[in-house]
Amino acid sequence: MEIVKQGRQSWRYTNPPQIYGQGVCGGRLEGLGPLKESFDYVYTDLYAGENTFEKAEQKMQQKAGEIALAKAGLAKEKIDLLCAGDLLNQNTPSAFTARALGIPFFGVYTACATICQALAVSSLAVACGAAAYALALAGSHTCTAEKQFRYPNEYGAQKPPSSQYTVCAAGAAALGPRQGKGQVGIAGVTVGRVIDLSICDPFNMGAAMAPAFADTLTVHLREYQRQPQDYDLILSGDLGKTGQAIALDLLERNGVPHVAERFTDCGRLLLGENKKFFSGGSGIGCAASVGLGHIYRLLQQGQLNRVLLCATGALLSPCANQQQESIPGICHAIIMERG
Amino acid sequence: MEIVKQGRQSWRYTNPPQIYGQGVCGGRLEGLGPLKESFDYVYTDLYAGENTFEKAEQKMQQKAGEIALAKAGLAKEKIDLLCAGDLLNQNTPSAFTARALGIPFFGVYTACATICQALAVSSLAVACGAAAYALALAGSHTCTAEKQFRYPNEYGAQKPPSSQYTVCAAGAAALGPRQGKGQVGIAGVTVGRVIDLSICDPFNMGAAMAPAFADTLTVHLREYQRQPQDYDLILSGDLGKTGQAIALDLLERNGVPHVAERFTDCGRLLLGENKKFFSGGSGIGCAASVGLGHIYRLLQQGQLNRVLLCATGALLSPCANQQQESIPGICHAIIMERG
Repeated sequence: MEIVKQGRQSWRYTNPPQIYGQGVCGGRLEGLGPLKESFDYVYTDLYAGENTFEKAEQKMQQKAGEIALAKAGLAKEKIDLLCAGDLLNQNTPSAFTARALGIPFFGVYTACATICQALAVSSLAVACGAAAYALALAGSHTCTAEKQFRYPNEYGAQKPPSSQYTVCAAGAAALGPRQGKGQVGIAGVTVGRVIDLSICDPFNMGAAMAPAFADTLTVHLREYQRQPQDYDLILSGDLGKTGQAIALDLLERNGVPHVAERFTDCGRLLLGENKKFFSGGSGIGCAASVGLGHIYRLLQQGQLNRVLLCATGALLSPCANQQQESIPGICHAIIMERG
Repeated sequence: MEIVKQGRQSWRYTNPPQIYGQGVCGGRLEGLGPLKESFDYVYTDLYAGENTFEKAEQKMQQKAGEIALAKAGLAKEKIDLLCAGDLLNQNTPSAFTARALGIPFFGVYTACATICQALAVSSLAVACGAAAYALALAGSHTCTAEKQFRYPNEYGAQKPPSSQYTVCAAGAAALGPRQGKGQVGIAGVTVGRVIDLSICDPFNMGAAMAPAFADTLTVHLREYQRQPQDYDLILSGDLGKTGQAIALDLLERNGVPHVAERFTDCGRLLLGENKKFFSGGSGIGCAASVGLGHIYRLLQQGQLNRVLLCATGALLSPCANQQQESIPGICHAIIMERG
């Protein structure tokens, strides 16, 4: 059997589905950052040549998917399943990308944890033979996300230090059956639960997501009977400085020490330490572009061997928030392994 | 191997994951309709005792899930995966239901095709051993959906004959491994592609979805090498009168005859022929409550043996629509079989 259950929330693959090709696109700021070398394509204009930000976001997603397919050497007709998601209402950029690519489509959404859900479902479909090849795809755009969840950037609304900058980036991975040694693949999955410690402030997403990250990581290590040291790197998606501090504190309380030594955040890697971005980078594009770009490259080059990518999502609903509801968090973890 | 690939878009299960329990809730109108006997719980008040329609929708979803678990005799701690979705931005009712139930959560979204996506992913996870038991859940509420996608019902805006009534209903199914003969299970899946014939009118969702239904059914029959007569019933989710007529016309052109003899629509079954609902019922709740309520019962009683449930979704984005974009359609098909 290809799939071995590790516990309630986790499974591993005996033959990890392999990443045949990946594609990462970003905006101008992301393309000027510390990980600029890892981007396949950078849009210097926030409109990406379109007349709305929403269309720009869709264009960026589609480009990432097309690059992944080109690198994998797979025509889009060869792909049996597209799992894609984004932050916009009705997963609009993903649906329109699915329309453009013509690939059978599952829309996935768990906020900024979406890329790991897409990789989980895609790898499952490939591992059990439901799909010969699958494409996982996700992204975010600062102008569409800020407008939808908080205020349009153009308003210039004042932000508190705990607020984050939604990145402009998209990442895609074309998955297929394992072909041999030395390739980077998805070795296992831990599906997250929704955790809510009653954070209601949409300018403090780090605090809303940190408990979910701590929960998923604690469960993952227990179900896999592993220590943090078993990973070269443990990556949260987009906790920001505020969320990272809370997460490490919660893990300490959960009896999971030594995480800090191996831990970093995709948003921090992507944008560096820059006060301009307040608490740090966030958005689906963080885990998608860093995990499938920079981290994938380090794994491929043998500089890393096993990484736990924990994409963190704040399930913020502006409507529920206005109805005095809090912001639940979720975090899905994916083992990326060269083996 | 548990999963046999039938073609690019389809797979079947050699041991179909079984429905251990199902739950169906509805609103007052749905509970007075032709299928009133199939509802486990009817909310006579659109608010369901809550102070907003959004909270009412969440309550109805959660109730359907809890009923399914109770009938299955499974504690929520026994369920490894919840696949849930709805029509609201950010899948809010589903996320809050996942918070209440504490089950590891995948948010799914392909508009009104969501219930079949939820059943597809849940059955896949159960069949390949990634989840011991899984819960598929989806629903819709007329007041939240109309407000978000068109106009609040309270405005009393005039509607054209092609418009549909979004139903208040939710359906859930607890899936687990096949235990023996004579049980109702999910025998196979066809994942839909996004099909768009440039319909831009949010008051004509039937026309937007019909081409996707015709495409998925044509692909399904080809990949399974079956005829419409191989099914006791072929069900579209919520095409309305307008969409049903277009769908049958398109199928005729695709060279798929004799569909009409076995074909009906969940919205039509749920609400009957009533001019009050214009072209007919729509919303995720149509396929979810009819498929997992009335149709499940007929299968269980042996009055039906094999049904193709084709949930149809209009991937309408009000934002994209205002940017002169059309409404893409999608349709996922699930074989429900007593075997």
